Amino acid sequence: MLQNYQFQSADRILAGVDSIKNIAKEAKSISKQASKVLILTQPFIIDLDFFKTIISELQDEGLQVDVNTELEPEPTDANIEGIYHNIKTEGYDVLIGLGGGSVLDGTKLLSVLITNECLLEDILGTDLVEKEGLPTVLVPTTSGTGSEVTPNAIVTFPAKELKIGIVSKHLLPKLVILDPVLTVSLPKPITAATGMDAFTHSLESFISNKANYISDTFALESIRLISQSIVTAYDEGDNLEAREKMLIGATYGGMALTAAGTAAVHALAYPLGGKFHVTHGVANSMLLPHVMEYNMNSIVDRLAEVAGPMGINTANLSNEEAATKVVEKIKEWTARLNIPQNLSEFGVTEDDLQSLAEAAFNVKRLMDNNPKPVPVEDIKSIYKKLLS
Amino acid sequence: MLQNYQFQSADRILAGVDSIKNIAKEAKSISKQASKVLILTQPFIIDLDFFKTIISELQDEGLQVDVNTELEPEPTDANIEGIYHNIKTEGYDVLIGLGGGSVLDGTKLLSVLITNECLLEDILGTDLVEKEGLPTVLVPTTSGTGSEVTPNAIVTFPAKELKIGIVSKHLLPKLVILDPVLTVSLPKPITAATGMDAFTHSLESFISNKANYISDTFALESIRLISQSIVTAYDEGDNLEAREKMLIGATYGGMALTAAGTAAVHALAYPLGGKFHVTHGVANSMLLPHVMEYNMNSIVDRLAEVAGPMGINTANLSNEEAATKVVEKIKEWTARLNIPQNLSEFGVTEDDLQSLAEAAFNVKRLMDNNPKPVPVEDIKSIYKKLLS
Ligand SMILES: NC(=O)c1ccc[n+]([C@@H]2O[C@H](COP(=O)([O-])OP(=O)(O)OC[C@H]3O[C@@H](n4cnc5c(N)ncnc54)[C@H](O)[C@@H]3O)[C@@H](O)[C@H]2O)c1
Ligand SMILES: NC(=O)c1ccc[n+]([C@@H]2O[C@H](COP(=O)([O-])OP(=O)(O)OC[C@H]3O[C@@H](n4cnc5c(N)ncnc54)[C@H](O)[C@@H]3O)[C@@H](O)[C@H]2O)c1
Ligand SMILES: [Fe+2]
Ligand SMILES: [Fe+2]
Repeated sequence: MLQNYQFQSADRILAGVDSIKNIAKEAKSISKQASKVLILTQPFIIDLDFFKTIISELQDEGLQVDVNTELEPEPTDANIEGIYHNIKTEGYDVLIGLGGGSVLDGTKLLSVLITNECLLEDILGTDLVEKEGLPTVLVPTTSGTGSEVTPNAIVTFPAKELKIGIVSKHLLPKLVILDPVLTVSLPKPITAATGMDAFTHSLESFISNKANYISDTFALESIRLISQSIVTAYDEGDNLEAREKMLIGATYGGMALTAAGTAAVHALAYPLGGKFHVTHGVANSMLLPHVMEYNMNSIVDRLAEVAGPMGINTANLSNEEAATKVVEKIKEWTARLNIPQNLSEFGVTEDDLQSLAEAAFNVKRLMDNNPKPVPVEDIKSIYKKLLS
Repeated sequence: MLQNYQFQSADRILAGVDSIKNIAKEAKSISKQASKVLILTQPFIIDLDFFKTIISELQDEGLQVDVNTELEPEPTDANIEGIYHNIKTEGYDVLIGLGGGSVLDGTKLLSVLITNECLLEDILGTDLVEKEGLPTVLVPTTSGTGSEVTPNAIVTFPAKELKIGIVSKHLLPKLVILDPVLTVSLPKPITAATGMDAFTHSLESFISNKANYISDTFALESIRLISQSIVTAYDEGDNLEAREKMLIGATYGGMALTAAGTAAVHALAYPLGGKFHVTHGVANSMLLPHVMEYNMNSIVDRLAEVAGPMGINTANLSNEEAATKVVEKIKEWTARLNIPQNLSEFGVTEDDLQSLAEAAFNVKRLMDNNPKPVPVEDIKSIYKKLLS
């Protein structure tokens, strides 16, 4: 019997250059009675031009707008719950998350904490959120996590030195706005790392044990769009065509991972974030080529299929050759985009590898999707490649 | 400035062979308090094996299940409103539509009539539905309309001799189940006509004036899947792989048309349905090659882009040659799948062409999407090609 598979996403996605200008009309249409909204964002964003546009559009529609800039990059449980306690009795009708994956994840979690009147530990895991959250509008300013269309949110637990995922359909937003103009200000290193994170979502979904027609559609199109644009977006930050392709590609990456799941790259990345504060995108970008080489003998034919969408000329290549070129191209990008190559820069030593590897091994939700099992010893060897 | 575009779909899609077996668990999860559900379907379906499975799955979950088989193919206003009056006070928690586009459209409309306590004439047009409908589960048994993921529903108005579309986000379902097993019983002529309807959605969306990154993704993948499977599904009705590709392809067609809109083929098809009872799929299949030939000089490059996904070898072909091969291939299918070629069989005469053409011209919502304007005289000439 063929397997079953699923698709879910945001209720509505609006996309394109300057699409952000519709935010007020759109926000009104998801909640007709809305009168008070909270924008969750980060300090540097409130100085950017588009932020003023958003505020005045919302106010012109007669909405009372509050702004909170307390969500930190890769937010911790304490950070999110602190904001929760400050805002829970404010009576907001809609939460707007405007920022990278960190802000979007934080906004998603706050929306369900408020309606469920609970703490993060009550919902840690899969499908533990009982009630729908406050309606959310998610506006990504990085082209990376795809968080705007996934039922997932990631929390950093410093006490446990871990990052843990929360999965619930109630984390999906009512509305997403994908406006490439908002990503023009991304600094090069963040364009690179978040872009490679998005690429990792699509490639891992494509080789996932749970890959299917639907995830393949989004994964391949995401791979195509990102391959066409990542170097241009890095070199010319204000190239709107490249920025738009990156943004749609990242959202498709989120759709792909929702349908098929990420795998060992993400499992190995989490402990690096939890313990050594390697940012999510950087950790994935560093690991991606090495994990793909490790997986290679199980995924030659699948990797060969992505060569074409990556723009590799496959005429007269065997599947082995095409698959090898895919990994070479990823390494080329990693160098071209100046992705860090050495974990020692982040304070990792050989002595840390055992506990890192055990933590990665225990991210079963993701390891189960990997096309081959990765024993703790092999995880250590993969990390070790990044220590020289 | 680049244009803005949007995406919306069902809240959740479950797909794959035997995925229907999850219907009860899934229905429960969309409405925890649900106790009474109504299945809307057609008489022949209640004799099929999968119907018994559905009923017993739902009853095993403790749900009270009623069945209504009154929705007619291409339902009229009187048909839908008659059912509305019979069921409105029954207190159903969930409506399940199980059938082709006719049943799905009917179910969508009933769900909003009930909560809005209104009649069809109150919501005829775009965005006129005020309140959310009853939660719906849509289970297509044809691979055609894509109605399971569109905010559209089509009603036949015999008094006006017209088919009219109703568009509202409140027509979108909570859950869609795409199980190819349910399409195995489709008779050959319906496999052919509904499959070509799906293909038409994707091709018209791809050449639509409103085409964009998102609609292109679904359109091209739909074209690829349908091209790989339509002849096999016709020849070997129980080939589940072909049936699955057709079903996913048809759903993607719905997503494409939601994002970009159909165009002149559909506009010309409606009056044939409203006045001469040519079924929707047959009308589209007959018109498709002729309208594409008419559009040709405006869409050579776009048509050339679909040649590859249709499986046409484009090596050494100019765009003109590739585009011509696309139309030839559509004509080949039309013959191979025994699509009717002559409108006189349906009672159309030369004297009818003027009023048909005027009615088609007035379907502005769709005509506006066509890559070139089609004056009434030209519409008459297109119809006339189908009269010899
Ligand atoms: N929910 C999911 O499905 C999912 C998937 C992958 C990762 N994540 C999580 O998302 C977080 C990472 O998100 P991210 O990679 O988008 O990074 P981020 O949100 O942490 O942002 C990275 C940095 O870029 C800055 N920034 C963001 N937008 C900017 C702009 N337009 N101009 C200038 N600077 C800008 C931020 O302030 C921050 O300093 C992690 O916590 C990760 O675990 C979630
Ligand atoms: N909502 C939309 O976006 C949209 C788009 C296009 C068309 N439509 C509308 O949908 C309707 C047409 O739907 P359709 O083309 O799916 O046809 P249909 O629902 O009318 O079904 C066609 C015939 O096939 C039979 N049938 C259906 N499933 C079967 C199965 N599994 N086995 C055997 N017989 C089966 C039906 O009883 C019917 O006689 C029209 O009213 C059209 O205007 C809606
Ligand atoms: Fe990621
Ligand atoms: Fe259609």
